[in-house]
Amino acid sequence: MMNMTETQTTLTIPLADDFHVHLRDGDLARTVTPLVRSGGVGRCLVMPNVNPPIQTVHDALEYKRSLLHIAPDMTFLMTLYLHEGLTHNELERAAEAGIVAIKCYPRGVTTNSEHGATDLMAHADTFAAAENLGMVLCIHGEIPNDTERGIDIMNAEEAFLPELKRLHTTFPKLRIVLEHVSTAAAVNAVRELGDSVAATITAHHLLLTAEDWANNPYNFCKPVAKTSADRDALRAIIKEGHPKFFLGSDSAPHRQAHKECEHPKPGIFTTPILLPLIAQCMEELDCLDNLAEFVATFGRHFYRLAPNKGTVKLERTPFHVPDRYGDIVPFAAGTTLNWSIPSPR
Amino acid sequence: MMNMTETQTTLTIPLADDFHVHLRDGDLARTVTPLVRSGGVGRCLVMPNVNPPIQTVHDALEYKRSLLHIAPDMTFLMTLYLHEGLTHNELERAAEAGIVAIKCYPRGVTTNSEHGATDLMAHADTFAAAENLGMVLCIHGEIPNDTERGIDIMNAEEAFLPELKRLHTTFPKLRIVLEHVSTAAAVNAVRELGDSVAATITAHHLLLTAEDWANNPYNFCKPVAKTSADRDALRAIIKEGHPKFFLGSDSAPHRQAHKECEHPKPGIFTTPILLPLIAQCMEELDCLDNLAEFVATFGRHFYRLAPNKGTVKLERTPFHVPDRYGDIVPFAAGTTLNWSIPSPR
Repeated sequence: MMNMTETQTTLTIPLADDFHVHLRDGDLARTVTPLVRSGGVGRCLVMPNVNPPIQTVHDALEYKRSLLHIAPDMTFLMTLYLHEGLTHNELERAAEAGIVAIKCYPRGVTTNSEHGATDLMAHADTFAAAENLGMVLCIHGEIPNDTERGIDIMNAEEAFLPELKRLHTTFPKLRIVLEHVSTAAAVNAVRELGDSVAATITAHHLLLTAEDWANNPYNFCKPVAKTSADRDALRAIIKEGHPKFFLGSDSAPHRQAHKECEHPKPGIFTTPILLPLIAQCMEELDCLDNLAEFVATFGRHFYRLAPNKGTVKLERTPFHVPDRYGDIVPFAAGTTLNWSIPSPR
Repeated sequence: MMNMTETQTTLTIPLADDFHVHLRDGDLARTVTPLVRSGGVGRCLVMPNVNPPIQTVHDALEYKRSLLHIAPDMTFLMTLYLHEGLTHNELERAAEAGIVAIKCYPRGVTTNSEHGATDLMAHADTFAAAENLGMVLCIHGEIPNDTERGIDIMNAEEAFLPELKRLHTTFPKLRIVLEHVSTAAAVNAVRELGDSVAATITAHHLLLTAEDWANNPYNFCKPVAKTSADRDALRAIIKEGHPKFFLGSDSAPHRQAHKECEHPKPGIFTTPILLPLIAQCMEELDCLDNLAEFVATFGRHFYRLAPNKGTVKLERTPFHVPDRYGDIVPFAAGTTLNWSIPSPR
């Protein structure tokens, strides 16, 4: 805890951990990756859903090398995309190589899509191995759209929670992260489960409701932002400073042409503005004292990682969010935030 | 009721009434207005929210004349935009001139926006006059977004229902149409209120859920399509053939550039495909027998109007929905419907 006063105008905290970020590859990676540090982050967990997805240790280490080539000062934590061919042997090699997590997407559990999330158990051997190896399972916790079962974009996360509970009961020592929680129901479920189950929270889910993405493709992501009651539950849990809830931005860049179009892609790009955005939100919630723990302590404790080396200084001076980074429109483009990260550091 | 068989391949019903349509003005009106007949409609209730809005008898009659100039074979029923300056005298003249309804928008009740829908009662004199004159009150029944009260785009309609009930209790003989109902809660509320309260249902709310507009601006409208349970409630009430629920398409054209952009405008354009779309939906619901009542009987009974002269013939032959009408992308663009309206008639 820091001692904050109303007159505080600077804030120095450890470099942050972002436990969920999309860095893409190719040109997009070259645009996005250097911006992670600009947002105040020193270490990030990189999602494996590039095309083709990162499914092997070899590919994960190659991907990591390519990212380090772009941003040598960043610590990249890597993930493997859960799939049927993930052998116990490969998982052992992954753990040895320092790959910290397996990522499970809804489409990763749709081998028999008519059975929905019960297919999670098709990966029981993988989960058992991950539990033994001390790897983390990151889950995008939504049931795919299913009209007959009444599951849609607004209740898909809540509908997944029984599966989460079942998974936790079956593998009580497996560390599970329910990612980008977006509902009061998910907050409550994670709070009530054992210490091996945690959740990440994005900056944008702290700020948005369905109202905000209905007519703005730049505010559209999956899981979608829900009601104000849901948003308030997320705010309450970070104001409480609960150690099982920590930062995973799910920052996901898309080119402007893939947003202002007939079928906008889901994903919100917060990477370059991440800590100023969160600082402003937490200041408004009167819990700026919790910032360092939310972005730099709780997550690494769960992942059993050492603190980041280095600090980041935030200043309470206006930060005009650019309209574009390359051809990517960031969240809150063109607005002014209360907090900034001076550069060069 | 018609006798339908599985082998039926044509269907002749009275020309339909569309009790909620946006025809715009200028170029857009010239593109859209002739298409009303193409969709199988012979008479339509024209919304007054052009810019500036239609607030006087004079303006309504001028607007009607301009529409008749474009489409002389159509019967246009006109509405006045509810506003504070609407005098009893003007309402009397409106009734004499055959203007059938007053339209109340959420922004029409925000004179003191901090009081939300309680402001409806600021128009009590107007409602009393409309009740006496036999005019219909058409309501866009949503409470404006209000974070403090927990009201957002998904529950805004349900939150309005207590206001609807209060209005009905205060003015029991005032005929009220709750327009474009989108929730099971609204269906139940209208069903349970007296015979002076009815509802319109759009074609698109019979077909969409939030899933469908999340990443498709052409499926975005207000009120937004909700959950599959809500959609199923709409389907059930038309399958039941309840006489208080009838067609109001809320077809609302926007140019492509106002849809594929940073802030897509709400509105779905179904006018040129209206009856084929509804016929296909009702056939899938196994209630095609109810089509004529839903589109040509229940509404005119509520509005106390004579039947339309003329009929429309639908054929069960594929109808390829065009990609564009001018620079307007219609609902279901590029898809093929099972039913078509042969032209020329």
